[in-house]
Amino acid sequence: MSAYQDLSTPELQAMLKELQAQYDEFKTKGLKLDMSRGKPAPNQLDLSMPLLDVLNSSSDMKTADGLDIRNYGGVDGTLDAKRLFGELMGVSTDEIVLMGSSSLALMYDVVVRAMVHGVLGSPKPWGKYDKIKFLCPVPGYDRHFAISESLGIEMIPVDMTERGPDMDLIEKLVSQDETVKGIWCIPKYSNPQGITYSDETVRRFANLSPAAPDFRIFWDNAYCIHDLYEDHDELLDLFAELKKTGKANMLFMFASTSKVTFPGSGVAMMIATKENLDFTRKDIAVQTIGPDKPNQIRHVLFLKSVDNIYDHMKKHAALLRPKFETVLQDLENNLSGLGIASWTKPRGGYFIALKTMEGCAKWVISLCKEAGVAMTAAGATHPYGIDPKDVDIRIAPTYPSIGELKKAGELFCLCVKLASVEKILQTR
Amino acid sequence: MSAYQDLSTPELQAMLKELQAQYDEFKTKGLKLDMSRGKPAPNQLDLSMPLLDVLNSSSDMKTADGLDIRNYGGVDGTLDAKRLFGELMGVSTDEIVLMGSSSLALMYDVVVRAMVHGVLGSPKPWGKYDKIKFLCPVPGYDRHFAISESLGIEMIPVDMTERGPDMDLIEKLVSQDETVKGIWCIPKYSNPQGITYSDETVRRFANLSPAAPDFRIFWDNAYCIHDLYEDHDELLDLFAELKKTGKANMLFMFASTSKVTFPGSGVAMMIATKENLDFTRKDIAVQTIGPDKPNQIRHVLFLKSVDNIYDHMKKHAALLRPKFETVLQDLENNLSGLGIASWTKPRGGYFIALKTMEGCAKWVISLCKEAGVAMTAAGATHPYGIDPKDVDIRIAPTYPSIGELKKAGELFCLCVKLASVEKILQTR
Repeated sequence: MSAYQDLSTPELQAMLKELQAQYDEFKTKGLKLDMSRGKPAPNQLDLSMPLLDVLNSSSDMKTADGLDIRNYGGVDGTLDAKRLFGELMGVSTDEIVLMGSSSLALMYDVVVRAMVHGVLGSPKPWGKYDKIKFLCPVPGYDRHFAISESLGIEMIPVDMTERGPDMDLIEKLVSQDETVKGIWCIPKYSNPQGITYSDETVRRFANLSPAAPDFRIFWDNAYCIHDLYEDHDELLDLFAELKKTGKANMLFMFASTSKVTFPGSGVAMMIATKENLDFTRKDIAVQTIGPDKPNQIRHVLFLKSVDNIYDHMKKHAALLRPKFETVLQDLENNLSGLGIASWTKPRGGYFIALKTMEGCAKWVISLCKEAGVAMTAAGATHPYGIDPKDVDIRIAPTYPSIGELKKAGELFCLCVKLASVEKILQTR
Repeated sequence: MSAYQDLSTPELQAMLKELQAQYDEFKTKGLKLDMSRGKPAPNQLDLSMPLLDVLNSSSDMKTADGLDIRNYGGVDGTLDAKRLFGELMGVSTDEIVLMGSSSLALMYDVVVRAMVHGVLGSPKPWGKYDKIKFLCPVPGYDRHFAISESLGIEMIPVDMTERGPDMDLIEKLVSQDETVKGIWCIPKYSNPQGITYSDETVRRFANLSPAAPDFRIFWDNAYCIHDLYEDHDELLDLFAELKKTGKANMLFMFASTSKVTFPGSGVAMMIATKENLDFTRKDIAVQTIGPDKPNQIRHVLFLKSVDNIYDHMKKHAALLRPKFETVLQDLENNLSGLGIASWTKPRGGYFIALKTMEGCAKWVISLCKEAGVAMTAAGATHPYGIDPKDVDIRIAPTYPSIGELKKAGELFCLCVKLASVEKILQTR
């Protein structure tokens, strides 16, 4: 098949007619599929059902340091869970706090507290500036951007490359502007591309020289153990690199068990230097009487060890791999060589990112919707929901069954073709 | 026994010597008791052990409205839990949100969000005022005050009476000052007095005419079902009263299961008009992917019905009643008629409040501490930790055993006497 741009106008017009007919037929099928959000599928949740049994009325109710998990106390997490997740993340128990069941809420709280009180080393609370800014690798995670937007933080988009965000631009912006206070990163299997930052990118993060003494890297390691293949991506340890450069206070790292056990009822973690966490703990002690300790112990009893966590993640991978491969095969079969779309081929994480021709993403998504397939809203992966070139589409292949993915993928590719042909014809 | 003030100086001097000797002997006993915080005792926690069994891998994983409790979704709580706790609190399911495991965190979050975004009807975010103020009935709950202090909200103390806070002063302050944005209340079995606001007090709250269009009553109904006796206090329903006066948006009510099941791992609730909650929900959706749904369902399965919740609370009462009575009997036996202390006789809640002679509270608490009994820090029940008359002591009788309470009570009464005699002698 030739690239669409090389086809003559009559050829394209004929093709458009045919694609339109196929699309109209699709609409009669009454599809109702959802490829919009990175939700685990029910069979992935089934993997963690023993989580509901491991802590019961016969269990020991004391933590390793003698705290009754049923009562008040342990405001920043239980020692047992800090040991397990600290080992998993390669940090000591005083470099990790375990709060609540959503790392998103942890991030929101960290930023809100920074607005009200600043962070360690802040000349003043972030809310006292006329304006502060966060750098946002794009396309990126809509919920990071929603936090910034909700708190009135100006977002500066930074393009992603195959090695991570454009570090030249980041180094420049961070070193020149004291009001640049943070950057949102998903460094391993980025949302939505599934890109893992290269060693060089991580080292350049470790060597940043921000103008702001209280600049923070929000390192959302959401997919740190979410590999699809044995031969998986390796992310260089930024915390270790920052310790070498003496800039470790620049890091706030986050992770959770949301896509390990059950989303929303897991264990959320924040990792930072003890100094950073001591500053934070004062505020945490005002905010809450502490996290759900039984649930942390439940996770310790179920997940057991770091080795066992990796084994557990292999079971997730076995369920997810064919789904990613189904979608990628579909894209390959239907869109390859047409010059109308490019896409990532992640080795982990929860998403695939696709770029359409300029001005086509919204169109594709609205065509999909009309025929019964929900995709992530166009623009959602950009700050303020605005994708200036209108090209970025996030595909979430994890929740539907393979049969559903095949149907949805067929429709999706059709919509990409349809919008592209119309676009080319419009511009001729 | 005569009142101490009526005794002659030589009589008091002789008494001081004797009390000092008794105290010195106490110090040799190596006591290590804690009457500082309102923690349930282990045997109260035992009452809820079946909570750990009711939700297990054989349970139905769907909510009443078909949501898989293991996955994302249900950002403001599960329908099943809203139904149960809504019925308990006398509100409809759209007047309640269930978030996280700590009502303190809910309150903190509400105030933080108000600082950043305001509340429904705010002319501007609370953080944009040079200064805003909260009224604080005193003595009151230290953690309420810590939230205000942490967020830079000025606190204005309002004296408590036996019918609730001084409503004349509240009406005056609220109606005159647009920067008075809130009031902290624990309306039933107040912390620390165990006072329940009278019907008249509640009606006066329902008729407040605040200068601020966004004034809110923070009605922390922490002990709403925490009666010690069948013949318990009744709190008039402020929400119902406010609906009559057309001012229902003035209310933010909070409650939790912290002292029903397990502190820190229960269900926290916020109750308000649908309008108020709709405003709040927008922010909640940015902050978090949602609460721990399995834990909400666990509570529904364990607590079952409103009737059953009241039965469960009677079991708590059976364990707590003798503890309150032990302490009250001790106070009666040792301090009655001496003119050196007065105290409340609560019919529910978690605390007893005692007033010493002026300038004695800190002294008593430091004497207790030196002899091995930890009490809530003097001043803690006042804004900024400052009790201007130095008279208020909070007694928390729930955690120690009755044997321990007897020992601690004996020492405590001795310390009150010792400090009072010295005080009287100093002022002669």
